[in-house]
Amino acid sequence: MRMPDPDANTIARRARIARDLKRIVPGEGVIVDEDQLRAYECDGLSAYRQPPLIVVLPSTTEQVSKVLRYCHENGVRIVPRGAGTSLSGGALPLADAVTLGLGKFNRILDIDLENRCVVAQPGVTNLAVTHAVQDQGFYYAPDPSSQIACSIGGNVAENAGGVHCLKYGLTTNNLLGVELVLMTGEVIRLGGKHLDAGDYDLMGVVTGSEGLLGVITEVTVRILRAPETARAVLMGFPDSESAGDTVAAIIAEGIIPAGLEMMDKPAIHAAEDFVHADYPLDVEALLICELDGPDAEVAHLIERVEAIAKRNRVQTLRVSASDEERALFWAGRKAAFPAVGRISPDYYCMDGTIPRHALPTVLHRMTEMSRQYGLRVANVFHAGDGNLHPLILFDANTPDELERAERFGADILRLCVEVGGVLTGEHGVGVEKRDLMGEMFSEIDLAQQQRMKCAFDPGQFLNPGKVFPTLHRCAELGRMHISGGTVPFPDIPRF
Amino acid sequence: MRMPDPDANTIARRARIARDLKRIVPGEGVIVDEDQLRAYECDGLSAYRQPPLIVVLPSTTEQVSKVLRYCHENGVRIVPRGAGTSLSGGALPLADAVTLGLGKFNRILDIDLENRCVVAQPGVTNLAVTHAVQDQGFYYAPDPSSQIACSIGGNVAENAGGVHCLKYGLTTNNLLGVELVLMTGEVIRLGGKHLDAGDYDLMGVVTGSEGLLGVITEVTVRILRAPETARAVLMGFPDSESAGDTVAAIIAEGIIPAGLEMMDKPAIHAAEDFVHADYPLDVEALLICELDGPDAEVAHLIERVEAIAKRNRVQTLRVSASDEERALFWAGRKAAFPAVGRISPDYYCMDGTIPRHALPTVLHRMTEMSRQYGLRVANVFHAGDGNLHPLILFDANTPDELERAERFGADILRLCVEVGGVLTGEHGVGVEKRDLMGEMFSEIDLAQQQRMKCAFDPGQFLNPGKVFPTLHRCAELGRMHISGGTVPFPDIPRF
Repeated sequence: MRMPDPDANTIARRARIARDLKRIVPGEGVIVDEDQLRAYECDGLSAYRQPPLIVVLPSTTEQVSKVLRYCHENGVRIVPRGAGTSLSGGALPLADAVTLGLGKFNRILDIDLENRCVVAQPGVTNLAVTHAVQDQGFYYAPDPSSQIACSIGGNVAENAGGVHCLKYGLTTNNLLGVELVLMTGEVIRLGGKHLDAGDYDLMGVVTGSEGLLGVITEVTVRILRAPETARAVLMGFPDSESAGDTVAAIIAEGIIPAGLEMMDKPAIHAAEDFVHADYPLDVEALLICELDGPDAEVAHLIERVEAIAKRNRVQTLRVSASDEERALFWAGRKAAFPAVGRISPDYYCMDGTIPRHALPTVLHRMTEMSRQYGLRVANVFHAGDGNLHPLILFDANTPDELERAERFGADILRLCVEVGGVLTGEHGVGVEKRDLMGEMFSEIDLAQQQRMKCAFDPGQFLNPGKVFPTLHRCAELGRMHISGGTVPFPDIPRF
Repeated sequence: MRMPDPDANTIARRARIARDLKRIVPGEGVIVDEDQLRAYECDGLSAYRQPPLIVVLPSTTEQVSKVLRYCHENGVRIVPRGAGTSLSGGALPLADAVTLGLGKFNRILDIDLENRCVVAQPGVTNLAVTHAVQDQGFYYAPDPSSQIACSIGGNVAENAGGVHCLKYGLTTNNLLGVELVLMTGEVIRLGGKHLDAGDYDLMGVVTGSEGLLGVITEVTVRILRAPETARAVLMGFPDSESAGDTVAAIIAEGIIPAGLEMMDKPAIHAAEDFVHADYPLDVEALLICELDGPDAEVAHLIERVEAIAKRNRVQTLRVSASDEERALFWAGRKAAFPAVGRISPDYYCMDGTIPRHALPTVLHRMTEMSRQYGLRVANVFHAGDGNLHPLILFDANTPDELERAERFGADILRLCVEVGGVLTGEHGVGVEKRDLMGEMFSEIDLAQQQRMKCAFDPGQFLNPGKVFPTLHRCAELGRMHISGGTVPFPDIPRF
């Protein structure tokens, strides 16, 4: 299906805005050609497609500031975009909005080992941050699967995670500072190379704000020393309860693995068929537990993990003897998505988080739902931090299968909330989970979140249609008007 | 100096509000007696004193909600208070405001080892959280010096730190969830026992918000496994540059000590005279570096720290051979404040943070300022994370010494900002640093912070007079009114 051609009004509006934007970003920085615009029509949530009105590609903070001020003054909506790898539609264009791409912000600005940080422009890829410091023995810990492509600015906007976030935290735990352009064009700097800045944690709010609060034009991240050793333990279990109990026991004993991943039988078989990682095929659940640190610590922790697994009915257990073997253990897990893509025409990747103890319940209920919807599901998850990635298998060419897959997915997310979890672990809300926000948040919660949005972007020009299921006019949130007048400053007597 | 007696209007207002509050919090929950109110007249910043209008001591979230709603509807200002240990005047009462004390919220609600967390009411002390789980081998990492007295809710409000925050983070890095009562009486729950909640990080904003956004009525914190071993290295240096270089090199090599503390000569001598910790007296700077983890890792790291110190002109070096000796190394550091209190009638404890590499510059400039103001200064700091605690020695009975000490302190904080640091590390802004906020933040920054305040408390009833040097009326922040109407929800076409 192709979108209808734009009408005359849209064409005229596009020409007028493009002319104005070209004054701010000269040269090749403004795209209006419809064929070129198609390159921006979707992000990682590829079921949704919409070419933007215009794409603008500024290369300096000053240009971003001028673009935003122009849009603010002229009522033009704007969708910020990093590398366009969002799995929740965070960078999905709107037909009447300008997409502001940050691809030209691609330089590392400072490598500061004494303060253990790197300052980068937002378009630098996640992996390039590690590449910039790995010769000195450092790395940047959060490692989303898309790390070769996704941008560090997008990581901040989505609070990206990855396999290592169990031990090393999400983006928010590894971020030290950002430069942010507000919708008015004002530029603020949040955080820096130091700890706590002594005021409201605006940087925390901006992290994971999905492009609704401002445009990030610079990022300062903490880097870590690469561990001396990393080894992985591959464990097969007769049922998912045993695997889940093992995960719970490892965490309850205070061990924090660098990664603790689980796969169910369909995922194990799909992965093994694809990459031949030598996974056991007679088990119902597989755990991969990576431990890193000094040699002696890793050896000690592996002993403890083995003992826990044995207490929990482990069927097969192998410890990697070399970095090559460790890489092989991971190869299946990392290829699980494309592996599932080989056994099904389409799949829909969900992202929910649950308290660890609820894992067996949730797996059991998902099996029931799978029967109910008549759709297979393969499970791959960051078990250590309770972050599920069920892959629902369907065929978009079979009538109503996409729609059933979506309903199935929504039920999984409702289940996550029901057991005390949340709608997302690391993929964000975006368009995908927008209409499920009410399952998790009360009207009071959502109103308070929207007051926050209004404090940054009262005109609601930034990335509209994302995150919030209903948008109230800022003035309607009401309580902005209760105060009768200026609050005089109280005198505080001294002694 | 004693405050003038309240006038007839104040007495009548007090009686009316007290009568109404007693309907919400019956029994002993409302204090109006002036002698009893004096118990609340100051917090840890004892230079400032002001009895509150009334103290109310609710014991349930519902009561807190009703008290806030009442105050909101009747234009009554309110100052939340935990244990009253703030060093920046965060809990300082106002003559016309109700102080809302959370002392009755003193229960641990849930200990959940599988999810590695504790749920506590806000009045529980920091140390009581550790006590609740230490028999199971766990502890709560942030450890402000006041941990025996300070409350976990106050820790959240001030984003408290401590010696261990270099390795384990500030409160914000160890917090999983809060229940917050808004000024309208609405109750919101932020975070929980899981990771990232998939919306703006309101919990992050509330952490360190110094009582200006809402009242915290429940806290969920992460607990950690107690390390197998902890050992400390005591190092004396001929000059502060060598000690500073050692700190920078330890961090640059990627070692993260559990604590890395520095003392200058005046602090060393005062501490040694007081607690006889056997500190070397012929050195200009002392470092205490604690390493924790498995035995083998600690032994390995101690070797590396020793090698670094030797490369940086260390004069004396001792490694603790027992837990008793380690405790002795720390005894002097932990008693540094009272030790300085013995050599000077009064002292003023500052709290600023700088990038680590700026340490020698800042120490040098502080020595110059000390001469300029004619006041001695002793330096004690969390060197690993660049958090300075200079103690300015003065005599409040000598004319103008307090005022000179305050000007000296302000100059130190300006210097911190000048070298790329910030006004506070862990004590908050409160009253103390309020008027210095403009040194660090631009008008744009401060306006954006205030828009955040307005999103929570547009009437500005919560803890007025703290944090912001000038308070704008929320409506004056202006951009709340730009939007012409409801933003219609864009249709996102599907394929």
